[in-house]
Amino acid sequence: MAGGDDTRTGAVMATIRRKIASRSLAAGDRLPSIRQFAATMGVSPSTVVEAYDRLAAEGLIRARRGAGFFVAGGAVPPLPLAETAPRRDRAVDPLWVSRQSLDADAATLKPGCGWLPADWMPTAAIRSALRRLARHDDAVLADYGTTGGSMTLRRVLLGRLAAEGLEVGPEQMLLTGSGTQAIDLVCRFLLRPGETVLIDDPCYFNFQALLRAHGARVVGVPYGPTGPDPAAFEAVVAAERPRLYITNAALHNPTGATLSPQTAHRLLVTAAAHDLTIVEDDIFCDFEPDLSPRLASLDGLQRVVRIGSFSKTLSASVRCGYIAARPDWIEALVDLQVATNFGGPSPMAAELIAGVLAAGGYRKHLEELRRRLARARRDTAARLAPLGIRPWLMPRGGFYLWCELPPGHDSAALARRALESQVVLAPGNVFSVSQTAGSFVRFNVAQSSDPRILDTLRRVLAEAA
Amino acid sequence: MAGGDDTRTGAVMATIRRKIASRSLAAGDRLPSIRQFAATMGVSPSTVVEAYDRLAAEGLIRARRGAGFFVAGGAVPPLPLAETAPRRDRAVDPLWVSRQSLDADAATLKPGCGWLPADWMPTAAIRSALRRLARHDDAVLADYGTTGGSMTLRRVLLGRLAAEGLEVGPEQMLLTGSGTQAIDLVCRFLLRPGETVLIDDPCYFNFQALLRAHGARVVGVPYGPTGPDPAAFEAVVAAERPRLYITNAALHNPTGATLSPQTAHRLLVTAAAHDLTIVEDDIFCDFEPDLSPRLASLDGLQRVVRIGSFSKTLSASVRCGYIAARPDWIEALVDLQVATNFGGPSPMAAELIAGVLAAGGYRKHLEELRRRLARARRDTAARLAPLGIRPWLMPRGGFYLWCELPPGHDSAALARRALESQVVLAPGNVFSVSQTAGSFVRFNVAQSSDPRILDTLRRVLAEAA
Repeated sequence: MAGGDDTRTGAVMATIRRKIASRSLAAGDRLPSIRQFAATMGVSPSTVVEAYDRLAAEGLIRARRGAGFFVAGGAVPPLPLAETAPRRDRAVDPLWVSRQSLDADAATLKPGCGWLPADWMPTAAIRSALRRLARHDDAVLADYGTTGGSMTLRRVLLGRLAAEGLEVGPEQMLLTGSGTQAIDLVCRFLLRPGETVLIDDPCYFNFQALLRAHGARVVGVPYGPTGPDPAAFEAVVAAERPRLYITNAALHNPTGATLSPQTAHRLLVTAAAHDLTIVEDDIFCDFEPDLSPRLASLDGLQRVVRIGSFSKTLSASVRCGYIAARPDWIEALVDLQVATNFGGPSPMAAELIAGVLAAGGYRKHLEELRRRLARARRDTAARLAPLGIRPWLMPRGGFYLWCELPPGHDSAALARRALESQVVLAPGNVFSVSQTAGSFVRFNVAQSSDPRILDTLRRVLAEAA
Repeated sequence: MAGGDDTRTGAVMATIRRKIASRSLAAGDRLPSIRQFAATMGVSPSTVVEAYDRLAAEGLIRARRGAGFFVAGGAVPPLPLAETAPRRDRAVDPLWVSRQSLDADAATLKPGCGWLPADWMPTAAIRSALRRLARHDDAVLADYGTTGGSMTLRRVLLGRLAAEGLEVGPEQMLLTGSGTQAIDLVCRFLLRPGETVLIDDPCYFNFQALLRAHGARVVGVPYGPTGPDPAAFEAVVAAERPRLYITNAALHNPTGATLSPQTAHRLLVTAAAHDLTIVEDDIFCDFEPDLSPRLASLDGLQRVVRIGSFSKTLSASVRCGYIAARPDWIEALVDLQVATNFGGPSPMAAELIAGVLAAGGYRKHLEELRRRLARARRDTAARLAPLGIRPWLMPRGGFYLWCELPPGHDSAALARRALESQVVLAPGNVFSVSQTAGSFVRFNVAQSSDPRILDTLRRVLAEAA
């Protein structure tokens, strides 16, 4: 066998080993099909066959006749020292977009990433808040803070909830280290390994990565222009009895769609009938031009847990999220957060956020951001149209356009090619648990104006044709 | 039954419910004995019997003849809305000290807490660092940062490791949201529910709380003046086959003891013979007057994972920790941290810490802190001596004194009484997995000078005599 083939086989083996070690594949899980994995790794099917065979010989995976390969049971062996896969060889999985865009160098363009450019953020207000913080009490600068998190910030957030018609007290609000950590904490509290979780198809890719880390079984419900299809939702909830449903409020990631009042009500009726808890992630709510239905407000936080953070409109560097939920759940979540993080966010971070949110400038910043994004959505759609790339719908707000490719293209293959030209795309299947979104790409309109992106798209589409 | 009894029964039931909901008791776990739980809750044994019987009638727990009560299997029911236990009724368990001291009001004294007073911390340096941060790039103020964490801070930390004789590269260093989160992440990576973890007896109480959240089985090894007893360590490792051993380096919490070179070497030989991974938490290392043996340096990060943070000597408000480990493990931990937290600490927090650590003032701050703590250790020991409360040993550094009470006293009972006078103590058994440290109390010498503490101790000792 040639050296090059051996290297590629090694890379496939290393990727599978890492997936097992990091629990994105658990004992008993089916490995990706040969054909599919060859496509996402950019290697030939025979390379994947060779890699799977060697891993099976080592006992790490098992073949089942006619059914594919599965992760073997037993203790997970530590990774051999030398087999860390190079970054570019990663499979296009739910962690691919995060890793490629978070670790991209300055020359790399990121139309696939999930955040605004730093100069679109309210950095002047952050600078003022830092200077105010420098004059704050010693305790805020040096102590752990209380287990529920800064009462100043909790009150600001409770005021925002009240403005949506949800009146709750500070005992129903917990600050966390991030929005993702908020969902992680709720999953640790409510989920046991092997339990089923329902997610939208498509949905934010990191929900899948997170649920894998919890050993959850994940099922999807098709997401349409007004939310998940209510009949499909009821059928899947009745059949699969999920413990949790995790979804976005306001502006759905990746589609930008908005829940209708009728769908919201029907989801809650179904949830009540089957004792389903709903985690509603409100991370994009500040991008909305006007208030859309919130499951948390309709339900009054009985069976809905509301999650949020400030990473998209204020700063992703100031790590802080929150959970609004039943008071008895909050009390138990506090214990769990002390055990696993010795508390929540930095008291300094909480003060900083409270300061920026309470200042009058934040509302103006949001208005300007909404206008700027409306323009960017139109401009991006207009630039993509000549390539035959079309939005599935035109969102009311936010920075995502969920776009369909011209017929016959696979977005994972395009994303691998584009990465060679230092362009990180967000290919459709990383958002889809049923792997049915391979003809879609999610564009971040605030990160898509560089002409090199269009040039790269044009070239990789032509090469693949 | 009188109303008061009913309330107390309800409080005991609520505490058990919360322990189950928050996983500090898992399915199959034995409940605390009637006698022991009555003592920690400050109620009569008959109240606990009544509470256990009612919970058994509900199916939440089961009695086994002659063996006590156990948590029933099956799905964990959500907590009923009204049964949140009042804060003061909490059982004296491994989360008790954390919750009581983190949420203490300004009038409460905290000789049991695990941190220095805010005015002992380098707040002037933090204020300068915040002002510098206010002039930093937009990217540091607004972006997520790279998945491994600030390269500036990683390089500073690698320099400190090199000074201890451990030369590794940035691919062996990952920044995390806190020191606790670093251990949590390592446990998520290496542990599976039901696996066994070895801890020191006594050890930092939150290790127990954390391991409960992971569904781990916890076993202890007696900790002596030069580290765990090597023969006992070898015997328990051979018999119990733990996956992990979690311990402190430098200055052991709660005893203040220091590992000897002979013990360090023998632990590593035993670990190698039984394929045991060691997590070494270095959180108190900056308090050392001179360098003591480090398992991580001796082993070269082959089977030792080193953990640290800046909460004790720099600021607990700037949330940041780190993991130094094998490069392939770091790579998998990065995936896991993205999945569960979408990255590590705030880039701002990392820059702030790097700034304070690199400035010349930090070394001076540490020297002053060591002198001040040496005095406080002597003074606290002198004040406690007339009460018959004596240090188990005089530590080389740090802020803890592990003290034995006069004969016949139970520290959990004293801690409950002291809390009524707004004094939070750290009673011995919360540190002891074998529950054999009931005659010990851990004092934080930097938080023990208020005369009200001595008065309260004198009174509760007299009342209990």
